[in-house]
Formats: sequence, C-alpha cells, structure tokens
Amino acid sequence: MPVATTSDAPTKYKTIGTRPIRHDGTDKVTGKAIYGADVRLPGMLFGQVLRSPLAHARILSIDCSKALALDGVHAVMTSKDLPIPTQSDPIDLGETFANPKYLRDNVLASDKVLYQGHAVAAVAASNSHLAQEALEHIQVEYEVLPPVMKVLEAMKDGAPLLHDSLTTQSLGEDTGKKSNIASYTQFKLGDPESAFGECAHVVEHEFDTATVHQGYIEPHNVTAIWNQDDQLTVWTSTQGAFSIRTQLHAVLGHPISKIKVIPTEIGGGFGGKIPIYTHPVAARLSQKTGRPVKILMSRENEFQSTGPTPGTYVRVKMGTNAAGKLLAAQAYLAYEAGAYPGSAIGAGMMCVLANYDIPNAVVDGYDVVVNKPRSFAYRAPGATQALFGTETVLDELAIKCGVDPLEIRIMNTAHEGTRRVDGLQYPRIGCLETLKAARDHEQYRTPLEGPHKGRGVATGFWFNAGLQSSVVANVNTNGTVNLVEGSTDIGGSRTSIAMQFAEVLGLPIESVNPQVADTDSIGYTEVTGGSRTTFATGLAAIGAANDVSSQVIERAAKLWETDPESVTYSDGACRHATDGDKQLTFAEVAAKQAETGGPIIGRATVNPETGIGGAFATCIADVEVDPETGKVTVLRFTVVQDAGTAIHPSYVEGQMQGGSVQGIGWALNEEYFYNEDGRLENGTFLDFRMPTTFDLPPIDTVIVEVPNPGHPFGVRGVGEVSIGPPPAAIANAIYRAVGVRLRALPMRPDRVFSAIRDAE
Amino acid sequence: MPVATTSDAPTKYKTIGTRPIRHDGTDKVTGKAIYGADVRLPGMLFGQVLRSPLAHARILSIDCSKALALDGVHAVMTSKDLPIPTQSDPIDLGETFANPKYLRDNVLASDKVLYQGHAVAAVAASNSHLAQEALEHIQVEYEVLPPVMKVLEAMKDGAPLLHDSLTTQSLGEDTGKKSNIASYTQFKLGDPESAFGECAHVVEHEFDTATVHQGYIEPHNVTAIWNQDDQLTVWTSTQGAFSIRTQLHAVLGHPISKIKVIPTEIGGGFGGKIPIYTHPVAARLSQKTGRPVKILMSRENEFQSTGPTPGTYVRVKMGTNAAGKLLAAQAYLAYEAGAYPGSAIGAGMMCVLANYDIPNAVVDGYDVVVNKPRSFAYRAPGATQALFGTETVLDELAIKCGVDPLEIRIMNTAHEGTRRVDGLQYPRIGCLETLKAARDHEQYRTPLEGPHKGRGVATGFWFNAGLQSSVVANVNTNGTVNLVEGSTDIGGSRTSIAMQFAEVLGLPIESVNPQVADTDSIGYTEVTGGSRTTFATGLAAIGAANDVSSQVIERAAKLWETDPESVTYSDGACRHATDGDKQLTFAEVAAKQAETGGPIIGRATVNPETGIGGAFATCIADVEVDPETGKVTVLRFTVVQDAGTAIHPSYVEGQMQGGSVQGIGWALNEEYFYNEDGRLENGTFLDFRMPTTFDLPPIDTVIVEVPNPGHPFGVRGVGEVSIGPPPAAIANAIYRAVGVRLRALPMRPDRVFSAIRDAE
Repeated sequence: MPVATTSDAPTKYKTIGTRPIRHDGTDKVTGKAIYGADVRLPGMLFGQVLRSPLAHARILSIDCSKALALDGVHAVMTSKDLPIPTQSDPIDLGETFANPKYLRDNVLASDKVLYQGHAVAAVAASNSHLAQEALEHIQVEYEVLPPVMKVLEAMKDGAPLLHDSLTTQSLGEDTGKKSNIASYTQFKLGDPESAFGECAHVVEHEFDTATVHQGYIEPHNVTAIWNQDDQLTVWTSTQGAFSIRTQLHAVLGHPISKIKVIPTEIGGGFGGKIPIYTHPVAARLSQKTGRPVKILMSRENEFQSTGPTPGTYVRVKMGTNAAGKLLAAQAYLAYEAGAYPGSAIGAGMMCVLANYDIPNAVVDGYDVVVNKPRSFAYRAPGATQALFGTETVLDELAIKCGVDPLEIRIMNTAHEGTRRVDGLQYPRIGCLETLKAARDHEQYRTPLEGPHKGRGVATGFWFNAGLQSSVVANVNTNGTVNLVEGSTDIGGSRTSIAMQFAEVLGLPIESVNPQVADTDSIGYTEVTGGSRTTFATGLAAIGAANDVSSQVIERAAKLWETDPESVTYSDGACRHATDGDKQLTFAEVAAKQAETGGPIIGRATVNPETGIGGAFATCIADVEVDPETGKVTVLRFTVVQDAGTAIHPSYVEGQMQGGSVQGIGWALNEEYFYNEDGRLENGTFLDFRMPTTFDLPPIDTVIVEVPNPGHPFGVRGVGEVSIGPPPAAIANAIYRAVGVRLRALPMRPDRVFSAIRDAE
Repeated sequence: MPVATTSDAPTKYKTIGTRPIRHDGTDKVTGKAIYGADVRLPGMLFGQVLRSPLAHARILSIDCSKALALDGVHAVMTSKDLPIPTQSDPIDLGETFANPKYLRDNVLASDKVLYQGHAVAAVAASNSHLAQEALEHIQVEYEVLPPVMKVLEAMKDGAPLLHDSLTTQSLGEDTGKKSNIASYTQFKLGDPESAFGECAHVVEHEFDTATVHQGYIEPHNVTAIWNQDDQLTVWTSTQGAFSIRTQLHAVLGHPISKIKVIPTEIGGGFGGKIPIYTHPVAARLSQKTGRPVKILMSRENEFQSTGPTPGTYVRVKMGTNAAGKLLAAQAYLAYEAGAYPGSAIGAGMMCVLANYDIPNAVVDGYDVVVNKPRSFAYRAPGATQALFGTETVLDELAIKCGVDPLEIRIMNTAHEGTRRVDGLQYPRIGCLETLKAARDHEQYRTPLEGPHKGRGVATGFWFNAGLQSSVVANVNTNGTVNLVEGSTDIGGSRTSIAMQFAEVLGLPIESVNPQVADTDSIGYTEVTGGSRTTFATGLAAIGAANDVSSQVIERAAKLWETDPESVTYSDGACRHATDGDKQLTFAEVAAKQAETGGPIIGRATVNPETGIGGAFATCIADVEVDPETGKVTVLRFTVVQDAGTAIHPSYVEGQMQGGSVQGIGWALNEEYFYNEDGRLENGTFLDFRMPTTFDLPPIDTVIVEVPNPGHPFGVRGVGEVSIGPPPAAIANAIYRAVGVRLRALPMRPDRVFSAIRDAE
C-alpha cells in the first residue's frame, strides 16, 4: 500500500486530491446561507426557557399562572407537558446513547434540578422580550440540596446523590447500594499484574481534566410548527436531522413519520449539535398555541445548559523493559457524565492505549454523575482526556529509558495485527507512518534554542465510525448532477462527498451539485460526527454513482441499439465494446434522457460494519514558558495525520488545524469555573478563554496517506483525532522548557507558576 | 373491461377508490401552508414592474435614472438587462411551447409594447410602496400605434402588424407577406367536400368566444436570490418547478444546474401558473443588488399582464344522413394568441371533432397575434372554444333529424378504433359510456316543467398528457414511507400518487407521506397540467413501489437466510415460498433496515409515450331564462366523466365540479372588456364576473370508470375535460327555453335579451 506524505503529489485520481471551492462557500461568505435564526414564519411566537439558579434542588412546585395571564403570553409549559417515555432502550444518537427518561428530564426537569441552568419551565409569547419578562412571573419552590461537582467526590460514600435509580456498579455486579456511579466497565488483555513485575521502568500518575465547552459559534436554535393533524415540522441547526427526529420521537412520544426535521446551515457543532434541548419545548408550545414557535439560546444558556466534554479523573501506569519496550499498562478512567449518565467513557477506554502494541493491559472505566450539565460528544469524545495521561507517562518513560520520545513511540507503535485492550485487532493503519513523518519533519529536526523553551510530542488515536447513510443522484439534461444527501454539512462534506461521486463518473466537480435534504426527502442518515461522513456518506455517493453509470450504459445501449453488455463506461463517457469509434459522453447521454425512458436517478444506501479505518495523529509542540507568570506560549506547532486518502486536502488540513487549536485550548485555557454552590462563574466568551489567532502560531499540517483498505478510495475519517495529542504534547514541552510536569488541564499560568515555584 | 358508474362500489383495490383526507389538507385549512407570499428572507428587497398604459406602441426611450436616484431604490432594469436568447427552438412548457425571444420580450418589452400591461421596466427597493412610487419616476417615450384586438380583424390585409418577423402562412407556404398569422395547420380525413354533397342535413355556423382569465385565487409571486457564485434560487408558486427552471435558463441564458426552483404551495393555476413573468426580473434585480428580491403581482396585474385563454373565431359545419349519422364535418378555428404566437390552436384542432366517428373531416387552424396579453394554457386549453361550435351545431342537427340530442351523440360516438381527423386511432375509450350514463341519469329522465326553461346537453374530449415524472421513496423504520415527488400539488395529487404507491405495497395510506421537492432534490418532472399527474407521476410511484418491494424481498431473504427467489411480497408482507408459516410484514422488514444493509430507497422515472388514456365528459344543464332581462339561471347541472379508474373519487368529483363551474363562467359571465384603445375596463374581480356559489346550483357528478389499458390501475387524467361541454350545453338549453341560438360567449343577459327581441 503506497504511503505519501504530501497529498498534492500526482495521484491516480482526477478529482480526488484536488482543492475545489466548496459548494456552499459563497452562500456563507456573502451571508445568504439560511441559518436557524433566519427562519421566519407567519404568526410566529418566541419561546424562552426558565432555568434553575441552583445546582441541585428538589422542585416542590411550579406556578406558571401569573406568566400565562400576561398580555401577549400564549402558552406555558413544564415537564408535565412531556410524557414519561415508555421506551427504556437507550437511543442511539450517533456518537453516543441516551436513555429516553433522562433525555426528557434534561429537556425539562421533573422532580429535581441537577445543575445550574437546568430547564424548568417555558413560555411562548408574541415576542422574545416579553417571553423573557414572563419568566420572572413563574414561581418555583425549591428544596435546596448540596451539589457534588467533581467526579472523585461524587464517587465517595456519603456523597450527595443525584438519582435514586442508580446503584453501585462494581465489576458488573450491582450491590444495590445507591450511587452516583452510572456504569463500570473493564477491558483486559494478557496478565498486566505479572507483567508490571517484569518491567525495568514503571511510571504511574494521576490526572485531572476540566469541563470544556465546544464553543461553536452559532447557538442552538429551533423553530417548530405542530399542526392540528399532528404533523410536526422542525427547523434546526443540527449535526443530524434524523437524530433530532429520533430524539423528538422518544421525548414527545410522537411517531417519526409525523416529524419532519429540516436542517438549516450549521455554525459549528463538534459533537454538541447532536442532542436535543429546546426542540421538544418549541414543538409542544407550538401544539398548545397552534402557531410556529421559535427558541434561540443565548451564549449563557449554551455554557450553563448544553453538553460540554466531561471533566475527568485519569490514572495511568505504564511499564517498559530497559530498552523502552512497553510490557504492561493500566488505566483508570472516571468521567463526569454531568447530570445524567452517558459520558464518553467507552470511547476514552478504547482510545487510552490504542496507539501501542502492549501485550498486557487493563482499563477500568467509570461513568459518574455530578451536578453539571449532561456531558455530550466533543470531537473524539473522551479520547483527549485519556491520551493526556498515556502520552505524558510515556514521555517520562522515554526519558527514563534514554530514548527519543518519538523513537519510543515508533518502537511500540500499534500496527496491522495489533490486538487492542478492547479486543479489536487492527487492519492496515497509519500510526507508524505519522510517527515517522513527525520524526523526519523539519520542525523536529531543528534545534530549539533559548531559555524556558521546550519541545514536546504526543500521538493519538480515534476509531472513527461507519453507520447508515443515503445518497440520491438526479441527472440534469445538461450533464450535471444534483446530489441529495442526508448528511448535514459542517466542514465541507457536501464537497468531499460530491468529489467521490464525480470521481466515479469522471465528471468535473463543478458538474455535481450537492444538497442536504430534510428527513422527509432522503433515506435515513446518521449524524455528521464520529469522522464518518466523508467515509460512509462517501460510500453511498460512490454507490449512487455506480447506479447512475449502469443506467447511463443502458441508455447508450438503447441509442446505439445494442446490448448494455456491449457498452463500457469510463472517464466520463460510454464506449462501444467492439466499435471503438462510438463514444457518447455523460452529457450527451444526459441530454437524451427523455427519449430513452425518462430521467435518470441513482441511489445507494450503506451501513458499513467493516472497513472503517481508524485515524492516527502525531503533534509536535514548541513552547516558551514565562517563569515569572507561568504563561505558556506556543511557538510552533505541527500536526501529522493519516487521512487514508485526502479527498479534499484543504478540508483535511482545516480539520487537523481546527482539532489542534481546540486541543491547545484544552491544554492552556479552557475550563468551567464553578463556585462552591455549583454556579458557573465564567459562562461568557469573555471569561471562558478560547484561543484566538492572537494566541496561536500558524498550525503546520502534514497529511500522511495510508489508504484505508475498507474504502474504494482509501478514505479514513479525519475530523477528530487531531484534538487528542495537543495537551500531552504541550505538557511534555513545558517539562522540557522548565522541568515541571503538569498533570491537570488546563495548564493555566497559575498552575504552571505554582509548579515551577514548588519545584524550586 | 368493466364499466362502473359509481366509484364507491366494492373494487379489487384496498386503497384505490377510497376517500382519505388529503395529506396537505390540514396545513391549508389552518393557514400553516407556506405560500410564495409567506417567503421572507433577511435583507429582502421588493420589486415592482412598470407596465405599458398603451396596447400598442413603439418604445422610443426609457429613462430610469430618476427612479434609481431615489433613497431606498437599489436597482432598476429594462429588457436590456436580459440577453437576446441564442436558442431558437421553442421551449416545451408542458402544455404549450414558447419561443425564447418572445418569452423574453413578454417578460420585459424590448422594441415595442404589444398590450396594455406589458412590462417595460422594473425597480427593486427597500419596501414595496417605495418601489411602486419609484415607477412614477421612470420616463418612457412611446410612439403610439393602432392596436388590433380581435382575431378576424388581425387576419385582415392592412391590419396593424404586431411583429415584423411574422409572414403569412398559407397552407404551409410562406408567401413572405408580413402578417399577424403566426401559424396555419390543417388536419384532413377522407373526402369531406364530396361527403357534404351526400348529406341529408348540413348545418354551419360562426362562433365567437371571449378572452377569459383562469382567475386562480393566488396571484403570481416570486422571490429570488442570485448569489455571487451565480447560483440562483427561486421560490415561486408554479405548476412546474422544472418548467420555471427551463424558462429562466432560456431568458437569462443561465445554466439549469445553477438554478434551483423551490415550489411553494399553489393557490390555483389551471394552466396559468406554467409561464414565467416576473421570475427573471426578480432574479436579475437580485443579481444587481446582491440581495433577495420579491415581486408580488396585484390582481390588476394578473388580468392585464398574465396569459388568459384565447378569444376565438370558430366556424363549424357538420352534415348527417337523414337518420342523423354524421357523414362529414368541417371546422375553421382562428385563435387569438395574444401578443406573441402560441395559442392553444393545436389542442383545439385535436378536440373539435374528437367525440365522434366521422369518416370525412377537415380542420383548419390559425394562430393569430393581437394586442392582448400572450395567451397561455387554461384547463383543456383550446378545447372549450372549439366544442362550443361542434356541440351546438350537432344540437341543431339532432332537431333536424328528429333524434334525441344524446341519442345522436350515442349514434355517432367515437370508440375503440375510431380514427380522428388528426390521424390518431383510439384505444379503449369511455365516450359512449359517459353518453349512456347521462341518458340514463335521473336528471335527464325527469321532465323539466314551467315556462322559459330548457335542458341542454353537450359532450367533450381532452386527450390528456404523459411526459416525464420522477418519484423517490424513503422507507422509515416504523414501516412508513416518505415519498418525494417532482409534481407540484394543485388538486390533491400528493394523495392520489401516494394512494397508488400504497396500493402496490399493501400499506395503509396514512403510512405514506408525500412531499413535493425542489428542482435540486428530485429527478426531472414536467408540469402539473395536461391532466397528466395522477397518470404519469402515478406510474412513477408504482415503479418506485415495485423497486421498494424487490428490496424488501431481498431483506426478508437475508433475515431468513434464503434466496430472494424463495420470497414473495403481497398484501403488505413477505411470505416464504415453501415455508408458509414464515411471514414478515413490511413494517417488520422496515424495522430491520439497519442490520440488513442500510436504508431502503426506491426510485422510478417515466416518460410514457403510449398508454395515455383520453378523457370524455358529458354535461346536462337545466336553465331558466328571464325574457325581460335575458338573465340565464342554471337550475340543475350534472357532469358525467370517464375517470378510467377514480383513484380518489372526491378529488375526481372536485375536478369535475371545478371544470364545470369554470365552463359555466365562460358560458354566462366571463370576458375581458377592452375599449377601442385596447385598454382593459374590467380588470378586477368586481368587474370580471366569475360565478360564485350564489350563482350556481350544486353540481351533480357521475364518475364513469372505463379503465385505461395503458395504466396498471386504469387511470386516465381527470382534471380538464369537464370544462369543455358546459357552454354548449347551456346554449342548447337556452334554445330549448326561449327558442334562440346564442353563438357568442359569454351568453350574457344583453346578448340573450337581444336575441329574444330579434327573434320576436
């Protein structure tokens, strides 16, 4: 299998690997793209949601009557307006699962509020200001309960309990004792206990990572019409229209076939635009009023009430022989699910040791509820926290063994045939290739000079997803094709999918016009998430293109009055098998659709269960630490990632850069500050410090291409893995700059300063 | 082939023939349906169009500078902003054709204005009132020319000429002499000249019919965004989104693949919502301003500037033997195309004699331009005018022969094998069956008593259309199906198409959810017109259902671990060929789509060139004439129509009633009044008298079902034919009431009064 370290090298492809302008680019640049906030309907009302000021309390009573009595207020609602879900199976949200009862209680609290910002009641009024004002007239009586904000505290005996229904999960055995531990899982391979005994070097440390918000630029929004025939139409910004439909079905008890979700353009998601929040509220308020209802979230709502990444406690222990070969590893992961079970603990457990070939390993994982908003997916959910432990422990081991930190990773790299701790055995992967490309990179080979400067490296893994996708292709008479997809487009997937379609048919990319459809207009398609879209929806596009080409062959055969078997299709044209001069281009056949039987429609759907290519990334970070303040400046940053095959290198690079920047934000700046009462003290973009261009150097990217054998063009997902290595890479760089090991995220100035002072 | 005269008799079908509530019903009743006027976009401007006050004039100059200088006016345009079309082939508009140059000049006049209301210039401003005011600041210099308003005058030597490019068409020979005659065609069968010599009775008369507007309740509207990447998006009320796309392509010179037409709900069309008017204007104004532009027509605009049915001059001569058997017929049809060529003359020629088996016949047809708005399709375009002649002449012949007027029609009825004057030979048709059902109807058998009352009958034909249609079906996991169609829904076609889909799969109609898609999201589909939709899009739905059932069989085979050949599908379930107990319902297979390979999408497209079933209708009208005023009151009215198979009898009845009412409007009330300068004097609903419920009795309907052998369920189109017979039936009834023959439409009180006075 060929390996390339630049994706602009000549390839066997015509369209794949080029960098056309994205189809939706102009609309977005000129402000013409229609976002959820732009949706305006005749007679529309505006909803606002009353949210709990308390982190933990029992709701004694809610009285909405005074709000409802106000002029211009059309309806009020509480959780009593949502049915108790009868479905007990968790709902598949694409990258994560949700219990319907918890999902409903997160939409509107029933017996208890479990975090500050937890929705309690809602109103619909003739304008947004009036709705906001009406909230002040809703009277809620609370019985205040003590909150528990951190995972280790929540796991302790005697901790305040969030739920009556959770009982201690101990190695799969339910002791019946009430607990905040929602689940416990263990993966084990070989005999780690004995293997640690044989190690020349063993390093073990504890780590703490913060709650971090995705910080997408566009807040959640929803506009709903529930008509008298019980047909519900919802416009919303989402990573998956079908996932919203499924969740609305679960929370409203309304059949999927009576729900139409129209995805508007999306201003960022990163996993956070998968769950529902105000969607069922807008729907029910519309049902009550008979009018369209729109609810927009404020930025404060976003921080307080939507699902960030879990804060975690991580403990990692790794052991090597004298040369640096890993013999054993152990990881303990405890993740804050937030108010309801369902952190990304499973994914964290799969990723924590996934970069290495380790014969003996054990991973324990706990999903723990705390009085924070219900955590949801955030780019490679659960991986970054776990990798922070593994990659800094391994850095220490490299030093102990006297091995270069990239060489110790190369020595231990996972490869085709490596069995992971969760039991999966790797097909062809590109872990080694990203490590070698980093080792050979100019940044890594250039000495870093000057005081308080250091270079760190780290590598990471994300498994990527497959899941269901649907594509329909409608051929126009001028030889262009309208492509209908169910995948919402966050990062250019319209184009990366269209390019694969164009490649199969030998068409210029400008001839393919991709469209994101609503849930009534395309087959089921799972969320844009899990780095699955270019892979799985791409597979569907390839299938649809093949379906089109077989029909084009049939039409050419009809025009030539011959059998389809005598016609071949390649490079954008039909050729006659025996009469070499006969040729009909795609456009020529397309122009004759009417006379050869009518329009050509191609279609394909997929649900790939095999063939999914895992992704690896390696980062090099050069930092400078100001010992007087503890401030860390990233001087230079390179990310190397295996894209399988980069369909559109610019978008792959964009994903690598975006992931890296978010990882740097986690490393240095971003965290939720809660006071002792569980109130969020930095719920604005002024106080929640995401890095800006002023904080960052340009992010260099190196695309490595180790084609995924499970995809015709070799595609792996590329959207997530680059967020994983940066915190560890920066921690390792800080160590080399100033000799201190930081083991809590973010590594903010006060922590770095204290560590330096303590070391002195 | 079975014949039924009631469609509620038990049938072999489960869904077909039932009367479910239409899928779009609630949206329309509750005001939730989104019409073109409801489309609101951020930054939207409003356009207004300056229209000619003169019926015929040369444009010497247009100065828009003062309008453009106004605060809040963002752009102005004239025909100079539209390219001269390079395409010379007529564009297929579905029910009619249009020359691109004429289409462009009708959108905005170039060298001449050819009718009052002809668009001359346009402005886009920040609000509609300002745009309207700005029109007053546009200065147009005209050279006034004499108008010619009636077809016979326009055909005369020396008549004012509308176009320099038209030359006399004489029996196909172009004499080179400039003329208002745009085309001349002749159909001939046998030897009519000799045959007339053998006739015992010959009757010949001249007829005159008025210009009549479709009078749809919703005026034309368009909202356009032309973005900087030249992507044009258009929301509009139309009978065919793809037809609008084709016309925009022709007039703007813009590729179809850069044009997306989103059809909103439509408040009536009747043929009049096929052509473009302000669509390219809104598009170009959007391009000039970089903002969305919306243009709404007023009712006055509608009357003055959109395409009504042609006014006509018709001459019909028919001869029978002594018993009443038709031996020869001759028809001369001259139709007012309006300002540009393209009246429905061809359809009129096909229909004028189509109800009868006449061995010798000749039909001459002229398409003639006059200074009226360009005529366009109006329900069975061109047929009603022609049938008014045929059916009143035959009434006289029946009296001369002493035969009952229905019996003379039965005696001469067209039937399977009859060759029409245009050469087509009929397959199985239901002309005779509608005549017999009328003859046997209680109304016809009940004597009409009292003075000044009379009963008339008439019959009519419409050939119906086939054309291209596309349907895609997406199967939901709960066993329901989302059906995506390209056919805009005017009269319930979502439901009539969904019912055919449901019938094939044995699903309840509530499980099928039909959607009308935009031009980017479904395969090419021609207009909803020509009574083609339930037939042709129905065929596509049947094809899509068969495509789904074959995939459902494959999935069931997978679940049973057997071959698809061992599985059959019927009555909504898969059955195992050898193991009779094994059964999987559609819903059970649908629930397992993910695990059997992913979503199921069915698709089919059609372009039926054969199998199209012509439609026949017969009407019975009882009238009372007030001899003092000439006012005619319709006392009772029954319409009998062959639906082939009535998919949804209520909608078939609705079409029959609607067509009849419009025919009655043509008969008694509706006409354009132009003064001698060519100015319309009754361009409002107050002055243009359409019949209301106060003017009409309930319209009784009898559905006859002579299944069309060219459609699996026997569907014929049903939307148009009932408009044809009413004027003739009422004229015949007036004759029997007061002994006078009216030969001009409408038969308004003053004409009836004069005829009575003249007869006295």
